[in-house]
Amino acid sequence: MKYTVVALVENKPGVLNRVASLFRRRNYNIDSLTVGRTQDSDVSRMTIVMDEGTDPTKVEQNLYKLVNVIQVENVTDTPNVTRDLALIKVRVDSTTRGEVIQLCDVFRARVLDATPETLIIEVTGDEQKIESMVEMLRPIGILEMVRTGAVTMSRGERILRKNGFFRPEGAM
Amino acid sequence: MKYTVVALVENKPGVLNRVASLFRRRNYNIDSLTVGRTQDSDVSRMTIVMDEGTDPTKVEQNLYKLVNVIQVENVTDTPNVTRDLALIKVRVDSTTRGEVIQLCDVFRARVLDATPETLIIEVTGDEQKIESMVEMLRPIGILEMVRTGAVTMSRGERILRKNGFFRPEGAM
Repeated sequence: MKYTVVALVENKPGVLNRVASLFRRRNYNIDSLTVGRTQDSDVSRMTIVMDEGTDPTKVEQNLYKLVNVIQVENVTDTPNVTRDLALIKVRVDSTTRGEVIQLCDVFRARVLDATPETLIIEVTGDEQKIESMVEMLRPIGILEMVRTGAVTMSRGERILRKNGFFRPEGAM
Repeated sequence: MKYTVVALVENKPGVLNRVASLFRRRNYNIDSLTVGRTQDSDVSRMTIVMDEGTDPTKVEQNLYKLVNVIQVENVTDTPNVTRDLALIKVRVDSTTRGEVIQLCDVFRARVLDATPETLIIEVTGDEQKIESMVEMLRPIGILEMVRTGAVTMSRGERILRKNGFFRPEGAM
């Protein structure tokens, strides 16, 4: 069981540093930490995925103690969508190229670049989907891979704002 | 002009902390910093996008001084693919839903969740493409957005490995 915590933080220098120090100091076992922009240029949003050994309530409490942390929510049990993006460069030849392109259809992945010897593939999905694709490509020959780490958003009307989760006016 | 530097770092606790501290201490103006897994579980890969005010050569030199940093490359002038993933929750009604779905076709975006009042959209692309999509959706009503930050990979046979960039055997 993995836990996912989402945090809104002020978009200021040093915030990432403070959060990273906290995890280091407390020895939290972090699976992935992704920080990115939101629709509001003053606010960044972190998605933190933790192994089962780490107590998400403790993480939540400790994040709130940091300056620049606006709002923290444990979304593990909330219906949500989680997406990670991987770029994978595969070594191909005339025989395996077709096989890889067929796999892309199965995984709804996209080919971004092609040379006679390589393909770069973009695949998005949750942890398991990306792992499955990687396992299928590994025997063919992965030359290089980079992943963004996961971002998570609650389904439906539930949204995370500076003043907490709320449903917009008029929503069910 | 923005600069992009890619770094391979050991996948150990404290590495993110060290890199974040370096940027804080030196007052580097970082546009986005993304850390994610690679095909090798011992190695993580960072993509760092800097504003023009920051000298990428200095960043490269200072990263190399850190323990756990294996390999750094400035890929700004290398032909490459850059991808960022955004999840965008849009407020819709029966009139605007169709409009948003048409925009998804144009931007090759995907609808991940739908309720009578909301849609969650997944869009991937470079900075400019995502910004364009956001600008089109803003007047319709963005309720929530989260982005992963950019990841970059060189096109073709050029790959980043522990011992530097190299072309695989047999590649042109």
